[in-house]
Amino acid sequence: MEKIFERLEKARKTSPLVHHITNYVTVENCANITKSFGGSPVMADAKEEVCDMVQLADSLVLNIGTLNNVQIESMKLAGQTANKKGIPVVLDVCGAGATKYRNEMCKELMASFKVSVVKGNLSEIATIAGLNVKTKGVDSGSVSADKYELAITLANTIKAVVVITGEEDVVSNGKDTYSIKNGVQIMGRIVGTGCMATSVMAIFCAIEKNYALACASALVCYEIAAENAEKTSDGPGTFISNFFDKILMLSEISVNKMKKISKV
Amino acid sequence: MEKIFERLEKARKTSPLVHHITNYVTVENCANITKSFGGSPVMADAKEEVCDMVQLADSLVLNIGTLNNVQIESMKLAGQTANKKGIPVVLDVCGAGATKYRNEMCKELMASFKVSVVKGNLSEIATIAGLNVKTKGVDSGSVSADKYELAITLANTIKAVVVITGEEDVVSNGKDTYSIKNGVQIMGRIVGTGCMATSVMAIFCAIEKNYALACASALVCYEIAAENAEKTSDGPGTFISNFFDKILMLSEISVNKMKKISKV
Amino acid sequence: MEKIFERLEKARKTSPLVHHITNYVTVENCANITKSFGGSPVMADAKEEVCDMVQLADSLVLNIGTLNNVQIESMKLAGQTANKKGIPVVLDVCGAGATKYRNEMCKELMASFKVSVVKGNLSEIATIAGLNVKTKGVDSGSVSADKYELAITLANTIKAVVVITGEEDVVSNGKDTYSIKNGVQIMGRIVGTGCMATSVMAIFCAIEKNYALACASALVCYEIAAENAEKTSDGPGTFISNFFDKILMLSEISVNKMKKISKV
Repeated sequence: MEKIFERLEKARKTSPLVHHITNYVTVENCANITKSFGGSPVMADAKEEVCDMVQLADSLVLNIGTLNNVQIESMKLAGQTANKKGIPVVLDVCGAGATKYRNEMCKELMASFKVSVVKGNLSEIATIAGLNVKTKGVDSGSVSADKYELAITLANTIKAVVVITGEEDVVSNGKDTYSIKNGVQIMGRIVGTGCMATSVMAIFCAIEKNYALACASALVCYEIAAENAEKTSDGPGTFISNFFDKILMLSEISVNKMKKISKV
Repeated sequence: MEKIFERLEKARKTSPLVHHITNYVTVENCANITKSFGGSPVMADAKEEVCDMVQLADSLVLNIGTLNNVQIESMKLAGQTANKKGIPVVLDVCGAGATKYRNEMCKELMASFKVSVVKGNLSEIATIAGLNVKTKGVDSGSVSADKYELAITLANTIKAVVVITGEEDVVSNGKDTYSIKNGVQIMGRIVGTGCMATSVMAIFCAIEKNYALACASALVCYEIAAENAEKTSDGPGTFISNFFDKILMLSEISVNKMKKISKV
Repeated sequence: MEKIFERLEKARKTSPLVHHITNYVTVENCANITKSFGGSPVMADAKEEVCDMVQLADSLVLNIGTLNNVQIESMKLAGQTANKKGIPVVLDVCGAGATKYRNEMCKELMASFKVSVVKGNLSEIATIAGLNVKTKGVDSGSVSADKYELAITLANTIKAVVVITGEEDVVSNGKDTYSIKNGVQIMGRIVGTGCMATSVMAIFCAIEKNYALACASALVCYEIAAENAEKTSDGPGTFISNFFDKILMLSEISVNKMKKISKV
């Protein structure tokens, strides 16, 4: 993983355009985090234009946080266009496990186009894997499954990278599995820390074709910036301000301070 | 009101799930304030899933800030499900008095299900009470009505708690009436301070069945945190950051510093 | 331009109501910047109420950042109502040049009602002028056109004020052309700095009938506040907090510190 900083630098230099079809709750922070990492965000969801927008993009984020039938239709068009163009598709299964509708729409999306990365918290990913669990709105419910096994098995089944976020993040493509234990507790007090991580992974997938490595690198950068931000913060409000600042300040040294990231 | 801090602690410990169908302007801050007070926010408005989501929830926020017919339909379904489940419904009549459409939709919602709490600024609540006033977009117009009388009369008419926010907040269930004079002027310079107060009231209603007491307690906590935040802020931008920090720091001592809260 | 501060003071005293039909990405900051400059923001887009809301308003912002057919319909109704009422209409052609749909919708809007001000970055405005350029999502692509000539020619063609934002902003009504070179690079790292500038221009157009002068004055105030904010910021996160603070602190002295603003 010694190339994490090189990947970050590549993102900063090439400024990938990340197209988002996402929820209206955390959308502004998703755009801002994309900018902070050097990317160029765009958000558009009218079916009349999503295909044109994906044609310009270097990667695609789909996030079902506030889904509806109109948006799902646009997501399908966008996903199919991304597949044709050969750019990565990162699906955030936000709230899977909370309602039947979300579960069904996740299936429909994944049947309509090839997903490169599926990301969620433990109960969301367990739902996608077919386990009978309950997500508490968009916060993880308790799940007894083993994270590593879950990620590896699901990755092999759907032939995509699986990312389970939490205090420990697990990233697996079915063969290589990474564990990232960076990050800070205060992130649990801020809405959108999961959605923003998805945007950052989409940036890294645009510049690194090994998507598991790309996602793990993205999470390390994202969470080390969070650790740096916490040191000068008094709570979630000042943290989020400092967080954006610290992302721009990420340097080779600070990125190399990672606690752990290893193949399991 | 000596139990305000106990209620705050109960919210923090039980982490109620607050389902929101709300406007797209202030939605992120509504989610963040819910997290800051220890709650778990969820926002979803597709008619296909709102009933399932309400089934998971401990209270429901409905805010008509950017209403449309599709959203109103989902609000009705959500409100009816909340009634069946027996969880509190807090309606923010954001912008009532500005357009005929808002006034009519407020009536429709309140005719479709039982509302536990109706909240607005003076001209919004006066509109709900049937007075012929004009709201300036979503900011209060001038109204000559007496706040206390208005709140008490409307509460008795609709058999719900009525909350009128402003420099002085009035909370009444028709019998008991509370006046809260905390808060700071700078809040008038930030969009969403009213919407966020609604989310906080919904958290407290989830853990205190006397909804008037719950709402008054919520406003005291919310506004004392604002007073604490103002002391270290230079304007509305730094205030909002500090505000979220100060909410997490609310302790027995600071909550007991309230200036006034009394039955009228 | 010696009257810039007087215009700012007039906005603060009269608190114009600025109605917005805008994108869901940057909408909250558009509302907050309106409040910071002393205005009263309202956001509403249901076709059932936009005409009533425009009747209350002092100016109208239309921003196509996340357009769709339903919203475009409401924009037409709002624009026509604004024309009848005689209030200024500021159109932000956000993302023009990125997709065919955006280009067509811009034409449709401008054919449906009279626009007072058209604002965009260089490739967006070049698109409106009929040049064949490519916008990178919502960020400017490279364009070889001369800014001044482009602004002046387009202003004369559409008989509206044209505003091209960038490191140097150009404002022209076809006769008088202004160049504003204030502002700071860090604004490029934050989403919505263009959208917020549009809201500020709408405030100033509400209190100054010479719209070119109004827009130039708005940009000077906006960007000098940004310069002041940068001095105490460590990056984009703290900058945005400080920015809102510094807007409230804008005084005669600081507004007069402008670097350049001259007829070309």
